[in-house]
Amino acid sequence: MTRKELTDKIRERKNFLCIGLDTDIQKIPGHFQQFDDPVFEFNKAIIDATSDICVAYKPNLAFYEALGPAGWKSLEKTMEYIPKGIFTIADAKRGDIGNTSKLYAKTFFSYFQFDAVTVAPYMGEDSVTPFLEFEDKWVILLCLTSNPGSNDFQQIRSASGTPLFVSVLEKATQWGTPENLMFVVGATHPEGLGEVRSIVPDHFLLVPGLGAQGGDLDAVFSHGANRDVGLLVNSSRDILYAGSGADFADKAREKALQIQRNMSLLLGD
Amino acid sequence: MTRKELTDKIRERKNFLCIGLDTDIQKIPGHFQQFDDPVFEFNKAIIDATSDICVAYKPNLAFYEALGPAGWKSLEKTMEYIPKGIFTIADAKRGDIGNTSKLYAKTFFSYFQFDAVTVAPYMGEDSVTPFLEFEDKWVILLCLTSNPGSNDFQQIRSASGTPLFVSVLEKATQWGTPENLMFVVGATHPEGLGEVRSIVPDHFLLVPGLGAQGGDLDAVFSHGANRDVGLLVNSSRDILYAGSGADFADKAREKALQIQRNMSLLLGD
Repeated sequence: MTRKELTDKIRERKNFLCIGLDTDIQKIPGHFQQFDDPVFEFNKAIIDATSDICVAYKPNLAFYEALGPAGWKSLEKTMEYIPKGIFTIADAKRGDIGNTSKLYAKTFFSYFQFDAVTVAPYMGEDSVTPFLEFEDKWVILLCLTSNPGSNDFQQIRSASGTPLFVSVLEKATQWGTPENLMFVVGATHPEGLGEVRSIVPDHFLLVPGLGAQGGDLDAVFSHGANRDVGLLVNSSRDILYAGSGADFADKAREKALQIQRNMSLLLGD
Repeated sequence: MTRKELTDKIRERKNFLCIGLDTDIQKIPGHFQQFDDPVFEFNKAIIDATSDICVAYKPNLAFYEALGPAGWKSLEKTMEYIPKGIFTIADAKRGDIGNTSKLYAKTFFSYFQFDAVTVAPYMGEDSVTPFLEFEDKWVILLCLTSNPGSNDFQQIRSASGTPLFVSVLEKATQWGTPENLMFVVGATHPEGLGEVRSIVPDHFLLVPGLGAQGGDLDAVFSHGANRDVGLLVNSSRDILYAGSGADFADKAREKALQIQRNMSLLLGD
């Protein structure tokens, strides 16, 4: 998907909501266990309930890998089921030496047909650039993550005073453009979000960490939005597990609509 | 596997060779394409030819994931086929927020029964520690990697002059012990290997980057060995693709034996 198509979708749907398909087989309603593929059946119900609302879906690979080869099959079926025109992100946090990153890129872009994949920056340029060589596909590079451990290395300042997450921005913007590169910045760091936005005014930011992790939508928007919106804000658990009974899909839809309305107000629509 | 069991295996086999099962379906001899599962059949032949020699096997996940769910099945069968008593490493370079890293840990330690998994440090403590909670299982944390991109972030010096890869060592040794934590240090950085060894005298180091990437075994040993040897040196392409004809397995065995003899001389046996 191109940047323009993504931006158009955000304007059309009046929100920048990404739904995290972090489907935990331990947490989904009990009756799904009767199906051959409980994870896919749950995802199908969530997609049916929300695919006319959100602009993106983001399955986190860990939830699928934990089920072995069967989990990868659930992911494959989920990707086939997501309607065309919705942006899809493989939250995989991959990154390896050049020839190996190239294989990961093929996996997520060619095999599964994702629009984007999250990548970890620690191994540097040749671990990232193979993902940038696919047309209309995106790298979403970890920058300032939402978890407590983001304070361990990402904020270490260099001799010249530059925090590591800023060095990541500075280097990566030499490798990719606002047309194929986004950054992950956690909603738990609103000031960091503002700092990132001042350095990369045009790049999209993927923002996890709302809800369960404590981030706040208004603060994210005021620090992170740009003239094209430039944000994808993720919500996973709050939507997926909004209900635990037979009406879980209605509850999920209700929660997604509530976020959509809040986003729509922020967009001034 | 415990540290003592690994050290005993190294003494018994007089080498510290890890064979990287980076099985590329494009590179294996043509006749494997007739099998239902060419990757597993190739791995089986390599394991049959080398499992009385090496001390560890390290499949890199990218090569399996590129084939979708079928690739994960090949990995599962490969893990079942590797004889007990050989150390197994999932070269997966995972790392995510706490509850998600826990799922990755379950995948590799409980589902696939690997002894160790490689982990990327960028997301900090809560992305690493869930992997350390499994008995007799190991985290192998990226420290100073073998690729050109290792110069982009890993060597950035903090205000106090500490390179990032040293900060990773300093923090991580507060999270794990020499009984459950190793570090990745590329053979392409022999001086860096010496620096790492001076900071973590007791931890095992996993050393990739021999052969195709240009590293040198003697330099690795002289800078990286400790009194318990403390090294696992990986070779992938040099062994897997030592031959391309019907005798590929004999050629692979020959190459593994040659490395084993060189290592044995270094060990003074």
